[in-house]
Amino acid sequence: MRLRGRKGIRENLEQQEDLVVLDPGQYRGKWAELFGNDLPIHVEFGMGKGQFISQMSYKHRDVNFIGVDMYDELIRRASEKGRGVWASEGVDTPPNLKLALLNIENVEQAFAPGEIERIYLNFSDPWPKSRHARRRLTHPRFLDKYKAILNDRGQIHFKTDSVTLFEFSLNAFADYGLQMTNISLDLHRDGLNEEHVMTEYETKFVGQGMKIHRCEVLIGEAALESYRPNRLEKYGK
Amino acid sequence: MRLRGRKGIRENLEQQEDLVVLDPGQYRGKWAELFGNDLPIHVEFGMGKGQFISQMSYKHRDVNFIGVDMYDELIRRASEKGRGVWASEGVDTPPNLKLALLNIENVEQAFAPGEIERIYLNFSDPWPKSRHARRRLTHPRFLDKYKAILNDRGQIHFKTDSVTLFEFSLNAFADYGLQMTNISLDLHRDGLNEEHVMTEYETKFVGQGMKIHRCEVLIGEAALESYRPNRLEKYGK
Ligand SMILES: C[S@@+](CC[C@H](N)C(=O)[O-])C[C@H]1O[C@@H](n2cnc3c(N)ncnc32)[C@H](O)[C@@H]1O
Ligand SMILES: C[S@@+](CC[C@H](N)C(=O)[O-])C[C@H]1O[C@@H](n2cnc3c(N)ncnc32)[C@H](O)[C@@H]1O
Repeated sequence: MRLRGRKGIRENLEQQEDLVVLDPGQYRGKWAELFGNDLPIHVEFGMGKGQFISQMSYKHRDVNFIGVDMYDELIRRASEKGRGVWASEGVDTPPNLKLALLNIENVEQAFAPGEIERIYLNFSDPWPKSRHARRRLTHPRFLDKYKAILNDRGQIHFKTDSVTLFEFSLNAFADYGLQMTNISLDLHRDGLNEEHVMTEYETKFVGQGMKIHRCEVLIGEAALESYRPNRLEKYGK
Repeated sequence: MRLRGRKGIRENLEQQEDLVVLDPGQYRGKWAELFGNDLPIHVEFGMGKGQFISQMSYKHRDVNFIGVDMYDELIRRASEKGRGVWASEGVDTPPNLKLALLNIENVEQAFAPGEIERIYLNFSDPWPKSRHARRRLTHPRFLDKYKAILNDRGQIHFKTDSVTLFEFSLNAFADYGLQMTNISLDLHRDGLNEEHVMTEYETKFVGQGMKIHRCEVLIGEAALESYRPNRLEKYGK
């Protein structure tokens, strides 16, 4: 595939104001206003080409979705994907989807405290060298940032093929004092679940027979409160 | 190797009163008395042939070790191993080691509240069928039992080759509300550590190139208190 020049891509994105947010800082504290309703907001940090966030927005109409990436070209690819998924309904502008150009380092500049209900981290870059550990999106310094923008029902849903990133992340969540749940070391062990929305990387890795690791992290007090009473029920206790 | 008859093995064990405890219930609350000192007591539940507990007792003279299994023949094998490891010192009775015949279902009958400081679970039977989940040694109903006998500094150190048992156990620990630390999805990734004591199963599985999973669980309040202040230090925070 031939990539268009940087300038051409930027011009394309500027023409997609209904879907693409090039300066997300201007909506800090105002995302509900932008969506025109008070539905919970779920974001994917590092959405890549946008397959996951597009299909999620299509499947879950009761949630607003924001796909975040830091590259113009990926926002463009995701915009095509997002419109493509909704086209079957004759819809040109997905009503519950925005694509935001943003470096995750700066999430607090784009989202106000409590503005987000769920963060998806899908196949985040593993940064395998230990001197790059601080760049991993599950490093405690990022957890600080996520905590700052998540609401009372806040959760992080994380999946990755990388054993080393998953190991690092389990420890980071545990050391940070966070409650984990639904930990899986082989998400597709029992075959593909129809409800399960795959990302581009996931499709590729599952095709190669690699194992996908996943876990959920409960951050908000209300999320914890609704989890606690039945947490041992599945063990027959 | 030819196994001796049941009766022969039992007679053999009865002659090893210095090392083997056939009726551990009689020492409930009195293990320190039996060891003749107040050193912390570490137990291995399901020690098998006893390589781990024997070498641990030899390496760590400041700890009392109890290897637990429910089969006479394994106690006998472990007694040979225990004496063998210590023989190089001209010692016939390992001073800080006991081997106890006990079904782990009944640990509370053999140990008083707070009598144990650390539990090792090494390569516990995975019981892969979900209808057997209750038999897994990390099932919450066993965690109840462990909590009852661990002291203020109490920890559980768990290692296994089984991906499904490890996944089950991570969830059980998390759902039980326990603090995990030093989670590893590939214990021998960076080569063998000289300090690391291997079990029989571990030696076999590592030889087959299988990955070993491990984690520590902090139970006692003092264990948690000494962990908490520096828990994020390794992240440069
Ligand atoms: C390995 S890809 C995964 C893409 C997609 N989630 C998937 O599973 O197919 C990681 C994505 O994260 C984006 N990314 C990495 N660091 C980022 C940052 N600091 N801010 C925004 N996006 C970032 C990259 O541009 C890339 O698109
Ligand atoms: C798979 S072997 C592992 C042995 C050893 N820990 C190793 O890593 O080489 C599991 C051991 O646990 C013992 N075991 C299983 N359930 C037990 C129970 N309820 N009470 C006592 N021992 C048990 C078995 O007899 C067996 O020796």
